[in-house]
Amino acid sequence: MQSAHVSNTSFSEIAAHLAATAKSLHARGWMLGTSGNLSAVVQHQPLLIAMTPSGVDKGEISREQILLVDDEASVVNGTGKPSDETLLHVEIVKQKKAGAVLHTHSVWNTIVSDIFADEGGLAIEGYEMLKGLAGVKTHEHREWIPIIDNSQDMRELGATMSAVLTERPEAHGLLLHRHGLYSWGKDLREAKRHIEILEFLLEAVGRTLDLKRRGN
Amino acid sequence: MQSAHVSNTSFSEIAAHLAATAKSLHARGWMLGTSGNLSAVVQHQPLLIAMTPSGVDKGEISREQILLVDDEASVVNGTGKPSDETLLHVEIVKQKKAGAVLHTHSVWNTIVSDIFADEGGLAIEGYEMLKGLAGVKTHEHREWIPIIDNSQDMRELGATMSAVLTERPEAHGLLLHRHGLYSWGKDLREAKRHIEILEFLLEAVGRTLDLKRRGN
Amino acid sequence: MQSAHVSNTSFSEIAAHLAATAKSLHARGWMLGTSGNLSAVVQHQPLLIAMTPSGVDKGEISREQILLVDDEASVVNGTGKPSDETLLHVEIVKQKKAGAVLHTHSVWNTIVSDIFADEGGLAIEGYEMLKGLAGVKTHEHREWIPIIDNSQDMRELGATMSAVLTERPEAHGLLLHRHGLYSWGKDLREAKRHIEILEFLLEAVGRTLDLKRRGN
Amino acid sequence: MQSAHVSNTSFSEIAAHLAATAKSLHARGWMLGTSGNLSAVVQHQPLLIAMTPSGVDKGEISREQILLVDDEASVVNGTGKPSDETLLHVEIVKQKKAGAVLHTHSVWNTIVSDIFADEGGLAIEGYEMLKGLAGVKTHEHREWIPIIDNSQDMRELGATMSAVLTERPEAHGLLLHRHGLYSWGKDLREAKRHIEILEFLLEAVGRTLDLKRRGN
Repeated sequence: MQSAHVSNTSFSEIAAHLAATAKSLHARGWMLGTSGNLSAVVQHQPLLIAMTPSGVDKGEISREQILLVDDEASVVNGTGKPSDETLLHVEIVKQKKAGAVLHTHSVWNTIVSDIFADEGGLAIEGYEMLKGLAGVKTHEHREWIPIIDNSQDMRELGATMSAVLTERPEAHGLLLHRHGLYSWGKDLREAKRHIEILEFLLEAVGRTLDLKRRGN
Repeated sequence: MQSAHVSNTSFSEIAAHLAATAKSLHARGWMLGTSGNLSAVVQHQPLLIAMTPSGVDKGEISREQILLVDDEASVVNGTGKPSDETLLHVEIVKQKKAGAVLHTHSVWNTIVSDIFADEGGLAIEGYEMLKGLAGVKTHEHREWIPIIDNSQDMRELGATMSAVLTERPEAHGLLLHRHGLYSWGKDLREAKRHIEILEFLLEAVGRTLDLKRRGN
Repeated sequence: MQSAHVSNTSFSEIAAHLAATAKSLHARGWMLGTSGNLSAVVQHQPLLIAMTPSGVDKGEISREQILLVDDEASVVNGTGKPSDETLLHVEIVKQKKAGAVLHTHSVWNTIVSDIFADEGGLAIEGYEMLKGLAGVKTHEHREWIPIIDNSQDMRELGATMSAVLTERPEAHGLLLHRHGLYSWGKDLREAKRHIEILEFLLEAVGRTLDLKRRGN
Repeated sequence: MQSAHVSNTSFSEIAAHLAATAKSLHARGWMLGTSGNLSAVVQHQPLLIAMTPSGVDKGEISREQILLVDDEASVVNGTGKPSDETLLHVEIVKQKKAGAVLHTHSVWNTIVSDIFADEGGLAIEGYEMLKGLAGVKTHEHREWIPIIDNSQDMRELGATMSAVLTERPEAHGLLLHRHGLYSWGKDLREAKRHIEILEFLLEAVGRTLDLKRRGN
């Protein structure tokens, strides 16, 4: 049952924005095969978030399919099963005080997570694109993107994520090895900006590594 | 003449869904130059499937162009010549009890089929994307994608496909060497999810192989 | 002044089809920066062809901008300057009895034209995609794509093209070195199918060459 | 307050054209994460330019969001903060007498700016695509694209840009190291044509370098 504090208007608008963002990211090939998930906070106390359902094509998702869930991933409003990774979104929202969390699966983020998995992360610096990350004022910024081992145990994965986010408070995103990228923002617009920037940089790093290893 | 058991409504809806799916896959470059084909079961007993016609631009196909064919590839309803590969679709529908079969030609699936042709297939494991394949619960899954030699003899190719599907009942897709990818699902939605996942993974493998051979 | 034999309806429809095709090819990145050109025969005797104008963004071109030109590239109907390469289109239409001619500039066709320029062409064989080329019945077909040196002298270039087309009557397309790809068909639909197939194959060849040289 | 010399109609039309161009470039992945900026001259004396605002998603920007600014980057009409790089646009407009200036961030232009940064630029020659650059009549043209070190000091960067533009009057674009590409034109249409051509050529160079270093 929907909390009396959440207006239908705001949930509906957030749901529409989430669906539109999903379609945009799917169009780029970052949410193929129903992969990826998106969330946006509808209410902070108690926490209620708009969440994409599990197993739905992100290229065709409609606002009516977006679910309203609580911080235990229970469905408060809507029909369907929330994303398997809902608890990871909740973890990030709580710890980073985020307004939205996005998770993409792209070929480049997958490949790069593989290359740097043993190092537990990778550093990206010197790119102007970094300035689009919240709080970053200059391209001479060193962004560390942690890489976490993947797991099917969501509570375990959530705990690992939480530890890494505590260890790396300045991080704007993190990679799950051979799984995908998580980023967040104070609102959905900022989260989308962050995901686009990090995906761009991971592709640039992947291709540059490629060229550099071959003598360039 | 249309079978009395097939309602116009359901065939029309299936045809519309097939046409929309074709456009989506063509937009990704997976059905260029009228390549590829799509089918969806309209009726099981006797078998009647909605099939894309031969030689039609998959980026512009309309629901009116979709044909209704039987299990001998004879046209039951509609105008046009069904895809040359209709019998392969029928083979897969019967053997896998599939509700839909999709066949794409992408640059990466073509290249990867070439690299691993001598080995008769390739194994993909450790990727979270694998979880989107029916029955797969964990990224620690080893998916074997068989690669079959191409042939212009559809009955021979169908027989080879059948043998491989029998030998590899857990497979979710298979490659025809320098030809393309086949996947299927219990319905068109699942088949589309499978094709997107397998195309994604084949690209990731193709690019990773690239980087790994060069010392990464 | 428009020839009395050409109906407004057919020219208008052809122009609309040409504009739509231009947008489709531009969307793929094959006609960026006003590059590329498209033509379709409106009347055979005397020859009148619908031609894209010079310097127009192919992503925004409208049917009203399409010109009607004769075989000397003189504008018979419409406002604007026809493509600089109109005489090449006329050459191909006459020699191949084509109904439409398409010319694309893609990164991959440019790169591949460079790699094989010294050999005067490249052979592509074994790909199922080849079957989409008119007259080709099997993937065990060897398609030779001639590569011609570029030139700014259209009459010289047209003469060279003509000689190559005479020497290679089975060719479905040809490359101009560091310039682009030409293909044609009995109508615009076939020409579009050919261009899509050849662009696909050139990318597959370019990427495969890449991988093969590195030990795959 | 809007200058009395600028008609609402022309500013509104220019703003609409700028927004449409932004969406087109964003769709290609050249303005992800709110990166990039676009400007078009609305009035020459005194200078007033239409400018994209800072921090806005270029895939969703509307004409109402476009600002009218003067040559000190002060907002004359509209709500919002103009792009941080407005002064660079002003510099280019004044020095090149440009009617529009575009700035893109693409993976390939970023990578190539890195490869050739030590050389202060790169030469691109022999490509037919070069003919789309204003004043270039033949593919046997050698285009030098300067690469400037990035800086957060806009006035310093503007001064460096100005010096380079003076030193290289024939340049059609320039790269900021690990930042992006700037190009311009007599109007927005020409600027878009230039950006598309230069992005195409930088990708071709990036990929060719790749292949050439590996023995092709």
